[in-house]
Amino acid sequence: MATEEELARSIQHKLEHRVPRSEWTEEERQWHKEEKKRAKEAEKAAKAARAADEEATAAATGNVQALAMNVASLRVDDSEGRFGRYELGALAGAGATAAGTSRRWMSLADLAAHRLPESLNVESVWVRGRVQAVRAQGSKMAFVVLREGYATLQVVCTAAPAGASADADAACAVPVPREMVRWVTRSGELSAESIVDVCGRLQPAAVKSCSIADREMVAERMYVVSRAAPVLPFELEDAARPRDDPGAHVHRDTRLDHRVLDLRVPAHQAIMRIQAGVCQLFRECLSSPAMGFTEIHTPKIIGGVSEGGTEVFRLKYFEHDACLAQSPQLYKQMAVCGDMRRVFEIGPVFRAENSNTYRHLAEFVGLDVEMEIREHYHEVMQVLDAVFRYVFQGLEKRYAAELECIQRQYPFVPLRYHRERSVRLTHAEAVQLLHEHGHEMGELDDFSSELEKALGEIVAQRYHTDFYIVDRFPASCRPFYTMPAPDDARYTNSFDVFMRGEEMVSGAQRIHDLAVLEQRAAAKGIDVITLADYLEAFRYGAPPHGGAGIGLERVVMLYLNLGNVRECSLFPRERKRLHP
Amino acid sequence: MATEEELARSIQHKLEHRVPRSEWTEEERQWHKEEKKRAKEAEKAAKAARAADEEATAAATGNVQALAMNVASLRVDDSEGRFGRYELGALAGAGATAAGTSRRWMSLADLAAHRLPESLNVESVWVRGRVQAVRAQGSKMAFVVLREGYATLQVVCTAAPAGASADADAACAVPVPREMVRWVTRSGELSAESIVDVCGRLQPAAVKSCSIADREMVAERMYVVSRAAPVLPFELEDAARPRDDPGAHVHRDTRLDHRVLDLRVPAHQAIMRIQAGVCQLFRECLSSPAMGFTEIHTPKIIGGVSEGGTEVFRLKYFEHDACLAQSPQLYKQMAVCGDMRRVFEIGPVFRAENSNTYRHLAEFVGLDVEMEIREHYHEVMQVLDAVFRYVFQGLEKRYAAELECIQRQYPFVPLRYHRERSVRLTHAEAVQLLHEHGHEMGELDDFSSELEKALGEIVAQRYHTDFYIVDRFPASCRPFYTMPAPDDARYTNSFDVFMRGEEMVSGAQRIHDLAVLEQRAAAKGIDVITLADYLEAFRYGAPPHGGAGIGLERVVMLYLNLGNVRECSLFPRERKRLHP
Repeated sequence: MATEEELARSIQHKLEHRVPRSEWTEEERQWHKEEKKRAKEAEKAAKAARAADEEATAAATGNVQALAMNVASLRVDDSEGRFGRYELGALAGAGATAAGTSRRWMSLADLAAHRLPESLNVESVWVRGRVQAVRAQGSKMAFVVLREGYATLQVVCTAAPAGASADADAACAVPVPREMVRWVTRSGELSAESIVDVCGRLQPAAVKSCSIADREMVAERMYVVSRAAPVLPFELEDAARPRDDPGAHVHRDTRLDHRVLDLRVPAHQAIMRIQAGVCQLFRECLSSPAMGFTEIHTPKIIGGVSEGGTEVFRLKYFEHDACLAQSPQLYKQMAVCGDMRRVFEIGPVFRAENSNTYRHLAEFVGLDVEMEIREHYHEVMQVLDAVFRYVFQGLEKRYAAELECIQRQYPFVPLRYHRERSVRLTHAEAVQLLHEHGHEMGELDDFSSELEKALGEIVAQRYHTDFYIVDRFPASCRPFYTMPAPDDARYTNSFDVFMRGEEMVSGAQRIHDLAVLEQRAAAKGIDVITLADYLEAFRYGAPPHGGAGIGLERVVMLYLNLGNVRECSLFPRERKRLHP
Repeated sequence: MATEEELARSIQHKLEHRVPRSEWTEEERQWHKEEKKRAKEAEKAAKAARAADEEATAAATGNVQALAMNVASLRVDDSEGRFGRYELGALAGAGATAAGTSRRWMSLADLAAHRLPESLNVESVWVRGRVQAVRAQGSKMAFVVLREGYATLQVVCTAAPAGASADADAACAVPVPREMVRWVTRSGELSAESIVDVCGRLQPAAVKSCSIADREMVAERMYVVSRAAPVLPFELEDAARPRDDPGAHVHRDTRLDHRVLDLRVPAHQAIMRIQAGVCQLFRECLSSPAMGFTEIHTPKIIGGVSEGGTEVFRLKYFEHDACLAQSPQLYKQMAVCGDMRRVFEIGPVFRAENSNTYRHLAEFVGLDVEMEIREHYHEVMQVLDAVFRYVFQGLEKRYAAELECIQRQYPFVPLRYHRERSVRLTHAEAVQLLHEHGHEMGELDDFSSELEKALGEIVAQRYHTDFYIVDRFPASCRPFYTMPAPDDARYTNSFDVFMRGEEMVSGAQRIHDLAVLEQRAAAKGIDVITLADYLEAFRYGAPPHGGAGIGLERVVMLYLNLGNVRECSLFPRERKRLHP
């Protein structure tokens, strides 16, 4: 015979996959029926209790009940209304106002940062969090670990001695009624990941198992805001285990199949905040008056084909053929030809790449820059160099909590970079370095992944940096619109930025002369007709210009040395993943 | 016989449309052949001159020639190298360094803002701009109007008296050689929209026709950076004419067919900068520590169908069926269920709307917000209200130059809004107001465009504001995931924000209970299977939450009262427009 947990898991699975009842075991059908009955009875009892106590409760609980939103009415499980479940439904009682109640809310983040006013040690405050764990200690005491963001807090419920009434304490302090302790520990009531509101006072305590280790909350009231299904697809604890811990881990695919749950793992959330930080800092630097860039939004649905037409997603645009932009390349250049002068864009980029590697996504976020050049394409390189140093320094300064949180689960060596000016090599110098270290490659070849890695190690050893620029790439490695080097047509005015031995940014001066551009496109076998919109932009005077494109998820992956770009996308899309 | 201009236009047209030579007139063939010959000869002559003078020129022009980028070498048309055309090609002479030359550059914007150091009145500076107009005054003087961004500057070239050598003036001041004046005014050399570099000194002058009206530049050197085709699809002057001016105007479709050119119209550029400003201010407000929102990037390619499945663009994702997200709605909610707490996104949104109105685009930029709710959905409304007031105040403060520039071409009455708290009505109150003013509508109806306009006028008159919120919309007007009002299921916890009598923002609390959500989706006739990814997010505890979606182009259109959303999109996409 199956254990209760096995039964529950199996039923949950069958419900989720809509397995017809006829395929359930008799035992499962029986158990499920009983559970439904039990739930109904509890519901009924609670309803009755509520009806009977409604008046009394309204007075006793005051505005606690008065959550004016739609988790409004309280299903009180005790006559004092100190615990229970909010329900969707009728608006709550007397204390309700459009602006909410007068509850004093605290976030666990504020508690964790010790940003706690002294007064709060004697006043009751409210917190909302997810139930991470519940533990009974006899029948009179229970512990609940509450999680919000990166922080966890221990909540303790202590029952009043038998016979004593909690009502006696008019200020509604501890202890709580015995029924509340029972309710807290009742199987399934506070299922893991359920969201609860707790009102209580903070007191000093040594709590090793929580991130808030120097205090705990003594609960006075507790209400379930949203109850989680009793069986989770995986345990959050396993998904949050440090990379090198020998305990159980959850496979990445399983985690990503349930990405909403996976995002609750503090380190995974922190990665998303680092991602947001990179965008924020990137924009901040470029939008500064000294830089003077303007944000643009180029179309993602484009007629013709995108930059050569390989690996594009095609679609029907009403009755026309269209495709998704492989990058904002052509349109950001057109914006510069339209005298927008210095532009940037942060937006989705689509690549129908039939590859399944740790560094490719079918949809990712592109950070794109394009700018007029006054005199030399190194102006573009300097902007990129400055932007990245700004981003790195900003992350260190503003995202210390996130970096620390990620470090705990995914230890990494912080990125080494030169603060004033990044190391710059020409492609020829890089090839020379590789030759000196026994690697073989042609002078005009692009770097393979292995050579990139090797170069990264050589540069790291020689210059003590994980961040550097390789300049003056051979023409054979670059797209048709890249400006040839004026002194040697085998090379181009282009550069790549590398991080930890991987290419992260590709930048270049573009050809701004229509005739040369047409000739180059034709030479690369591109039908110039498909580029008509783009080429038109160069017909009526085009400023010398250049820019760069960067993959956001790749920047985050390399900065944190995470090893897989999927960890850095909110809902990754690749060859085999279109859901969730 | 055709005039030269007619010939040139006709040839230009045929070249653009790739009309085979056999279909040209004999006269056209002849003329085109001759022109090519003339160009070749000029080229040859220049080359010869360059070869002969190379040494002398290098010394005479110093680092003027040394533009180290790829508009590098100078085709000198005179022996002093004081004018000519940069050419793509070989790197320039002695003065070249990777970092460029030591030219002192000024932007016309800085000149316009009078941010000009005193010293510059005696020093030569460099400017780069487009040729807006050229005018000869006899054979010894020429005027060039230069444009950069919103600013125009008059450049004057004065020839030395016959016999006097410009070389005599070692400091290279005015006057310039007579050949240079001839070169400036030579037909086609400085075609409109060509980009030129000018070196010269600034001197006080009254120039009514330029935006920089109190000074002009006396040219010492001038070089063509990029030459525009001699015939433009339309005159920029016509496209830049104030809306109410009786002169010639360019049809919007013609302008948008050549959007790159159209973007150079100062007001059109300014609109794009206002657009960027809205994004910037929106993010700034939400990212502030007090607000605490995190930027996210949700996938644009999604499996299943987007929010009900009407009006979506479908595509093949490798071997699967997919569509483009109609909004980040479902995914931003999923991010909140993943404990991201408060998120926003600025990104493309796709609607296969088969409509051709002034306010719809098939691809636009969505500003999206989603946040946990503590107690009441008005928390969401308050955030939105605060954000918009922040955006409006920021535009007034930081974008005065842009607003002024737009005002000149498209006069509009500045938006009136309450600085502290916006006017709020319930839907019922709004219906009541409309009834009082003789308009008919049902209590649970949505507002038609006409009623929206009428309401806007009533509110404007009564509350002296063009910006207000209508709260508590009927359930029939809202999507399945909108939270019903707790006290009356005919209504919902939702609101719209209006500007100048048009809906601009739609906001609401969402249902966070899985069972209720499934039931509502089914009631609206949506196959819940297609929402599996979304519904899964609510299975393991979901916080109460709400948010809003905003169309960026619509905000800009309404703020500037432009009357057509296409003017507010960089490269608009609608039913009939997929290019450029």
